[in-house]
Amino acid sequence: MLPQERPAEDLIATAMEHKMAAQNNGKTNGTNGTNGHANGHSGPAPLDASKLIVTLADLTARAVPDEVAACTGTETICTDHMITAAWSATAGWSAPELKPYGPLTLMPTASVLHYATECFEGLKAYRGHDGRLRLFRPDLNAKRMLMSTLRISLPSFPPEELEKLILALMALDGPKWLPASRPGSYLYLRPAVIGTQPQLGVQAPREALLFITASFMPRMDAPPQGLKLHTNPEDMIRAWVGGFGYAKVGANYGPSLLATNEARERGFGQILWLYGPEGFCTEAGASNFFVVWRSKTGRLEMVTAPLDDKLILDGVTRRSVVQLARERLAGEVEVVERKYTIDEVVEADKEGRLVEAFAAGTAFFICPVSQIRHRDTDIHIPMGKGSSGAYTAKVKGWMTDIMYGNEQHPWGVVVDEKKQ
Amino acid sequence: MLPQERPAEDLIATAMEHKMAAQNNGKTNGTNGTNGHANGHSGPAPLDASKLIVTLADLTARAVPDEVAACTGTETICTDHMITAAWSATAGWSAPELKPYGPLTLMPTASVLHYATECFEGLKAYRGHDGRLRLFRPDLNAKRMLMSTLRISLPSFPPEELEKLILALMALDGPKWLPASRPGSYLYLRPAVIGTQPQLGVQAPREALLFITASFMPRMDAPPQGLKLHTNPEDMIRAWVGGFGYAKVGANYGPSLLATNEARERGFGQILWLYGPEGFCTEAGASNFFVVWRSKTGRLEMVTAPLDDKLILDGVTRRSVVQLARERLAGEVEVVERKYTIDEVVEADKEGRLVEAFAAGTAFFICPVSQIRHRDTDIHIPMGKGSSGAYTAKVKGWMTDIMYGNEQHPWGVVVDEKKQ
Repeated sequence: MLPQERPAEDLIATAMEHKMAAQNNGKTNGTNGTNGHANGHSGPAPLDASKLIVTLADLTARAVPDEVAACTGTETICTDHMITAAWSATAGWSAPELKPYGPLTLMPTASVLHYATECFEGLKAYRGHDGRLRLFRPDLNAKRMLMSTLRISLPSFPPEELEKLILALMALDGPKWLPASRPGSYLYLRPAVIGTQPQLGVQAPREALLFITASFMPRMDAPPQGLKLHTNPEDMIRAWVGGFGYAKVGANYGPSLLATNEARERGFGQILWLYGPEGFCTEAGASNFFVVWRSKTGRLEMVTAPLDDKLILDGVTRRSVVQLARERLAGEVEVVERKYTIDEVVEADKEGRLVEAFAAGTAFFICPVSQIRHRDTDIHIPMGKGSSGAYTAKVKGWMTDIMYGNEQHPWGVVVDEKKQ
Repeated sequence: MLPQERPAEDLIATAMEHKMAAQNNGKTNGTNGTNGHANGHSGPAPLDASKLIVTLADLTARAVPDEVAACTGTETICTDHMITAAWSATAGWSAPELKPYGPLTLMPTASVLHYATECFEGLKAYRGHDGRLRLFRPDLNAKRMLMSTLRISLPSFPPEELEKLILALMALDGPKWLPASRPGSYLYLRPAVIGTQPQLGVQAPREALLFITASFMPRMDAPPQGLKLHTNPEDMIRAWVGGFGYAKVGANYGPSLLATNEARERGFGQILWLYGPEGFCTEAGASNFFVVWRSKTGRLEMVTAPLDDKLILDGVTRRSVVQLARERLAGEVEVVERKYTIDEVVEADKEGRLVEAFAAGTAFFICPVSQIRHRDTDIHIPMGKGSSGAYTAKVKGWMTDIMYGNEQHPWGVVVDEKKQ
């Protein structure tokens, strides 16, 4: 292990702290006077949402398509604006810009195009049945984005500044693109940070770009016969202990596509990613995965993989499901975060103990799972009333109510929309 | 495992074959008549170097810097031209273009910026002491690029067409940027394929871009006191069985930067990546790694990690070293491709059996290693005459002679340069 004074498992944290400290020092120690920005610091500037420079698009130029039409093409339809902020190791963060949505220009030698120096977040803005526009726990996305950014050697930022920028984009584009006439609809928000330094060579980029888009995104939470999962081929695993499965970095996604495509050709929607010779269940596609079963002693349990081995994403939906189910199903269903194997799921199925299963994530929301194929075994999972298990439906209902304002809850953060 | 008819270890190959077959079918089955290209096929067009469209830059606009100046900045200096070819799932490959070097334009939603749908190659063009310009085994790079491209769910191409495009770029830019007045110099060639489809969502891109640049790249093969390696922290490993360590995809590089930066802050050049609880030696930074030692029975061995578990890159330099050493050191040094642990290296050091070590790759070429720090142990590796071990120097000399035309050898592929 590298430092003798810290246990091995803290080394990623150590490296991240070093990175963060270096940047914080840069902010105040005055050793670098080359950037000349005017905020009183003489080192690299921190990300600062209050400096936002707004350049408005022509709001009459593009009409808002209906949701179905917007999701049928091969191109994501974004709203009128996006936010960008550039960073360099010497100057720090530029003043963020809110400006018309449009292409990015990168040199062919840009770090992100070769070395996957990239990370992102995904969250949604919800038009409530009460007419208000809400985000769902955006503070968690902003904090996770910082963690992912540091893990992939991109620059740090105060997460609350990212949250402010996300809110600023929705405050401007929300009224037009998610109008009060469409209650129950959402837009998808995608913050990302990429390494832009135009220099080949395996090194941490000294230039980066943060950008945020808002777009349509198809509903994926209710496939007609439920989501069908296929376990991964033995020679393709998603993440590993000592890797980066817990970070929302591009490097977790591209390599998973080959197995996912194979599964789709066989009629399955996503891969159920197993880990190790034991076959521990980790994630379903790019979502977290929950199973509800009766234990051998007859107790109802809602089981999901734990976070401590850093194999899986600490999903905002996952975390919210765990919290709500613990509060609201107490005494009825025990929520258990632990390692569990596909063989346990097979056994529960054979013994008639399997109650239901669902994928949980921002894109798939709470999506009922109806089948798992593992090698030559098919696990058919009860779907209750046909479209979803009862607990799946309950959890989904609670979340929906918070997101769309049927229940006033601190997790639903109201956007202060600009009047148009 | 997914298919019942194939052993588990063939599944990546199966998925790749499916992908390749789908594209080849598209080329000839005539089911898709929407693209209207004029090569007699009615399906997606294959990559075809003979269709190259040339648009010349103003060759007087930029002077060629000297090599040292060209490598001191924070931006890679490329030659006058680059090659691009666009691909879409419906039309296949566009006619490749050789055109002035310049920025790429990508939508913020482009696949590569979020999901690391990207892969690349690295090779060099060498100005020989006989005045001729050579590539070194470019066929191996082109074939590996195809493998990497398929592994990351990007479109296939005939590798020989990629090789022709690389040669075309050097035929044009070689005479000016690597002039006969600079024998013993090289340029660095970087082919890459990226997913460009502007659609969010974890899926194989339906649009992609191949591009090739030629640039300066600093010499890294002779650090003053030899290359110093630090073993990886226990909570950060580079690649794993069932992963993609053997493919040259961006996802192998970005996540490695954090550990590399930590090592550099401690005065080390690169990470020696160990694998598993046994601590198997795999790669040194982004290079392959060789150790020369005396076995316990007194036999001289040149040891390097094997390819069969797919943890490491099948390096062109690695492969060439293995072949040359087997041919030319037969009877003197045995070349052994096998798993070996850091404890074996430590033991060889303690027992005075360690002879030398080097990193091998295109960027670092053959780079003598002088030290390895593993936890609280320092291994000091003999450097022979001070700058390199004797076998390291021998192998490096043979390779240099082939690259720069001192030895006429089939691995040195001469570029047919355009007269200026």
